[in-house]
Amino acid sequence: MRRTITIQTPGRGMIEVTGKVREVVRASGISEGLCHVFIPHTSASLVIQENADRSARRDLEAFFERIAPDGDPAYEHRSEGPDDMPSHVRSALTRTSETIIVAANDLLLGTWQGIFLFEHRRAPHRRILEIMVMGDR
Amino acid sequence: MRRTITIQTPGRGMIEVTGKVREVVRASGISEGLCHVFIPHTSASLVIQENADRSARRDLEAFFERIAPDGDPAYEHRSEGPDDMPSHVRSALTRTSETIIVAANDLLLGTWQGIFLFEHRRAPHRRILEIMVMGDR
Amino acid sequence: MRRTITIQTPGRGMIEVTGKVREVVRASGISEGLCHVFIPHTSASLVIQENADRSARRDLEAFFERIAPDGDPAYEHRSEGPDDMPSHVRSALTRTSETIIVAANDLLLGTWQGIFLFEHRRAPHRRILEIMVMGDR
Repeated sequence: MRRTITIQTPGRGMIEVTGKVREVVRASGISEGLCHVFIPHTSASLVIQENADRSARRDLEAFFERIAPDGDPAYEHRSEGPDDMPSHVRSALTRTSETIIVAANDLLLGTWQGIFLFEHRRAPHRRILEIMVMGDR
Repeated sequence: MRRTITIQTPGRGMIEVTGKVREVVRASGISEGLCHVFIPHTSASLVIQENADRSARRDLEAFFERIAPDGDPAYEHRSEGPDDMPSHVRSALTRTSETIIVAANDLLLGTWQGIFLFEHRRAPHRRILEIMVMGDR
Repeated sequence: MRRTITIQTPGRGMIEVTGKVREVVRASGISEGLCHVFIPHTSASLVIQENADRSARRDLEAFFERIAPDGDPAYEHRSEGPDDMPSHVRSALTRTSETIIVAANDLLLGTWQGIFLFEHRRAPHRRILEIMVMGDR
């Protein structure tokens, strides 16, 4: 089963999408298999991270601000502004897709794990996630 | 086929798990397909790396010490100590899962490739890997 | 369906392989499913990135030159030269495999996304990609 979901982001930051992905798994009726989540963008990405403490999320965002700062004069590609190229770098360092095992018609995530859409652009964006659930009912 | 394996880590560092994953593939009886390995933790991760030379592993560990040092005063999230937040950063920069092709009932890895559990915490931990093998017998 | 393709690289840099992967998907006859691309090397890797503007690619390469420079005196592993260990670091920071959804017998990529083989060694290399397409015809 394949579904496309849309996420409206408020600009740069991590947005938890675990609940929305779980809904797709539940609706698929698949009890054992794999759930593949793919983001068809190059300036937003995916990451599975600690979902309990908001400070961990802020620190991770701060790490990427330091390692790939906006407006870095070393970049040539700035057609969409100072946060354009850093967004591609951040995407390359995180993930374009995540695959999670499905068991008992649910995502088999760790206790502290959440699936996050990582918006890298400063402006709000309408983002798409393509989700495929495969396996046995 | 799905299996859960447990790895006792001695603290920070890369631990090769190729043999344990291979055993699951062999036991599955699947000749052609995919083997998906998922780590349900946010302070330990997975990476496929050079497995012949131990110095490559030490250098990779040293790279992460430099890029995400313990006790960085920039971090707010320290509830579990100075190696807590760096562990989440290292996990975000490596992988939560790896998918390896199965051929002739074995992992289709390159000659120098090994699958590693990357423990990011300084203290020993009991870690879990969830493994799913799908395909044709 | 599984296929092995060979890519001759001209040395360090990103080489688009989207067309070659698409050919394998088309030939498989699979209309809905997943296409898994795996690179059995530890000094070349995969990344899905912006494919329209060449400057984005140059900037991404420049980012990795800065974050993992050749000849770094901190590295112990130099058996194959000053670009040996940085290649392993770059591989760990990008990906060993990518999984793309297949729909209508084609890769379901975003408008600006391309699949790239990222050669990390300075010398030209003959690289292999293992491709598996699974799903329904």
